[in-house]
Amino acid sequence: MMPDPMITLTTDFGEDSPYVAAMKGVILSVNPAARILDLSHQIPPQNVRYTAFFLATAIPYYPPSPNILHVVVVDPGVGTERALLLVEVAGRRLLVPDNGCWTTLERSASQPPAVYRLTEPQFWRQPVSATFHGRDILAPVAGHLSLGVALQQLAIRVSSWVKLPEQPFQREPGRLSGAVEFIDHFGNLITNIPGEAFLELARNPVIITVADQEVSRHTRSYGMESPGTLLALVSSSGWLEIAVNQGSAAVHLQAEVGTPVTIKVREG
Amino acid sequence: MMPDPMITLTTDFGEDSPYVAAMKGVILSVNPAARILDLSHQIPPQNVRYTAFFLATAIPYYPPSPNILHVVVVDPGVGTERALLLVEVAGRRLLVPDNGCWTTLERSASQPPAVYRLTEPQFWRQPVSATFHGRDILAPVAGHLSLGVALQQLAIRVSSWVKLPEQPFQREPGRLSGAVEFIDHFGNLITNIPGEAFLELARNPVIITVADQEVSRHTRSYGMESPGTLLALVSSSGWLEIAVNQGSAAVHLQAEVGTPVTIKVREG
Amino acid sequence: MMPDPMITLTTDFGEDSPYVAAMKGVILSVNPAARILDLSHQIPPQNVRYTAFFLATAIPYYPPSPNILHVVVVDPGVGTERALLLVEVAGRRLLVPDNGCWTTLERSASQPPAVYRLTEPQFWRQPVSATFHGRDILAPVAGHLSLGVALQQLAIRVSSWVKLPEQPFQREPGRLSGAVEFIDHFGNLITNIPGEAFLELARNPVIITVADQEVSRHTRSYGMESPGTLLALVSSSGWLEIAVNQGSAAVHLQAEVGTPVTIKVREG
Repeated sequence: MMPDPMITLTTDFGEDSPYVAAMKGVILSVNPAARILDLSHQIPPQNVRYTAFFLATAIPYYPPSPNILHVVVVDPGVGTERALLLVEVAGRRLLVPDNGCWTTLERSASQPPAVYRLTEPQFWRQPVSATFHGRDILAPVAGHLSLGVALQQLAIRVSSWVKLPEQPFQREPGRLSGAVEFIDHFGNLITNIPGEAFLELARNPVIITVADQEVSRHTRSYGMESPGTLLALVSSSGWLEIAVNQGSAAVHLQAEVGTPVTIKVREG
Repeated sequence: MMPDPMITLTTDFGEDSPYVAAMKGVILSVNPAARILDLSHQIPPQNVRYTAFFLATAIPYYPPSPNILHVVVVDPGVGTERALLLVEVAGRRLLVPDNGCWTTLERSASQPPAVYRLTEPQFWRQPVSATFHGRDILAPVAGHLSLGVALQQLAIRVSSWVKLPEQPFQREPGRLSGAVEFIDHFGNLITNIPGEAFLELARNPVIITVADQEVSRHTRSYGMESPGTLLALVSSSGWLEIAVNQGSAAVHLQAEVGTPVTIKVREG
Repeated sequence: MMPDPMITLTTDFGEDSPYVAAMKGVILSVNPAARILDLSHQIPPQNVRYTAFFLATAIPYYPPSPNILHVVVVDPGVGTERALLLVEVAGRRLLVPDNGCWTTLERSASQPPAVYRLTEPQFWRQPVSATFHGRDILAPVAGHLSLGVALQQLAIRVSSWVKLPEQPFQREPGRLSGAVEFIDHFGNLITNIPGEAFLELARNPVIITVADQEVSRHTRSYGMESPGTLLALVSSSGWLEIAVNQGSAAVHLQAEVGTPVTIKVREG
């Protein structure tokens, strides 16, 4: 037996505000049997780049099934003319504002996505507020899709959408340079330098530099060095990561998203 | 087929403490099939006024169904003689401490509520602790109600209950005055001034003042002004809201709940 | 009808990181019908002692059922040789890193536990990363167990495991001495001094001392004293607790986990 349809939620609303609770109510008003799953409501406010990394690191672990719908509300453009999209990418379905929040997921997929713009107000809550399209458009549309409404009834196919610009990454002989892409809850710095490129270069002795500070150790995991050691490793999502065992590399190095990271072969 | 009964949870316990997890366990011990839905565990500690706004802004979006029970544990009076209530208001069912946390919801309903006091200890966990009635009374009562126990078996009808006093709001010719009622996760200030009263007055040029500072722009949504702009708009819940596009009005204006807000027609 | 199997999650990942979301995806990829329940993702990073208290205070409220599996990921030793365990204790099933995080739960059980080490990589995600065994081992194993795979297929019985050392607690004539064991979300200090031992001693006038400061009141619940009063009571989990009514005892007393607490009969 097919389990009840599932709707996941990823927002920047925080859990102190009543906005997440309101969205859940709207979903259940449309489909009382929908299973609702929280992915995160702690995306930093309006941070589309953060959302892009978050989705690319989480959504690929979900089964590619039309029975699961991923609703994303990080939406600094709410109330302007930005579109709301239904996206099918690598077999997963997402409802997102058209602001580039799924660009990284798109880049990692082997097939081009199918992208639809929501156009049919009869599936929306009325009146639609100017500031909360998550509650008034995305939640009811998710509910109707979970009941089996065909996407063609809700949306029209589009051929262009907003893409988030990539941060610079360069691969030269004996040298890799990139930037911090994401800082996680532990203060680990996840870079945009592919883990395998790092491992290949690091067969030779290398100098790893983050914001003019040198990271002297590289290892397979946190626990292999003594607490407090600054170290480089390949993250669980496959990127070069800078960490402090049982500490925060972000605090230790005063690093931010965008902080430059370079690896070069040690000379002489 | 009717979906399994749902129990929602709204508390000030935070997610670092084991109290939410214990309540979920008690519910499942009584009814292993209950669906549990988190609304928030980040209500500021013991803040009944905050809870009142939260519930009034979230609960009306839920379907009016006896199959959904909303359990609220913000309970500074735990262990004293304050009652625990089962409330039916506008078709929704809530289990709440009798401290006024549902007053705003009651005010917004078109029908008077039916209110019951929990009286039957045979439906409670024994022994009942002095400090955690959420776990020992509300959670098991929610479980039993979700199994179909009639409310008359658990509780007796009462005719009076605690009401939270309203913050002052005044409507005079050419002038509205009220206060900040709620500050959301983004730092938006939601006032107790009805949006439509504001829009009516704002057909004329108006001066909006928050804590002696003037808000010069009014607009429909955040994204319509440049980032950092202080602006007034009608919130998604229908109240006058003061916001900063991609920023925090609470920080910008050093405002708190209770900070006075006035709108008056600009003279001359 | 048996409800769908449930998998609960307790981690130190925070909700801002994509790690919880990834684990949920892996579980659903193995068993799309699994019910997923969040207990906490706000365990302080790598804090095994905190986890031990959390689990001992929450898990006993769950029904003793093989249909519920408790997955715990607080794992400073990830990537080292530490084992991953499937534990059956007092009828509850847990998947945990072998770091002592369930020691307090074990101590409170009346029967010895059955402990198994996960050994069968065919039930794991491949390749297994060095830094995220929650996603790559515990989540898929939980999924397979929830589908009915026998634990003997996944794991072998072991006879020794890591135990967390207890904090000192002493009971002498007219005197009890222990320490702060846990600080909850409200700043309440929960000690390792049993409530009934305290109540017995406190039939006489007693002096309660926390970090050289005296706590002068003892009471049954928070609300029985005026706001701001420092008081001692028996916590909802049965331990001596130091609290401030509508305030934070942790802030008031500058106390930490490990801060000494003594009770002695007042002389003369």
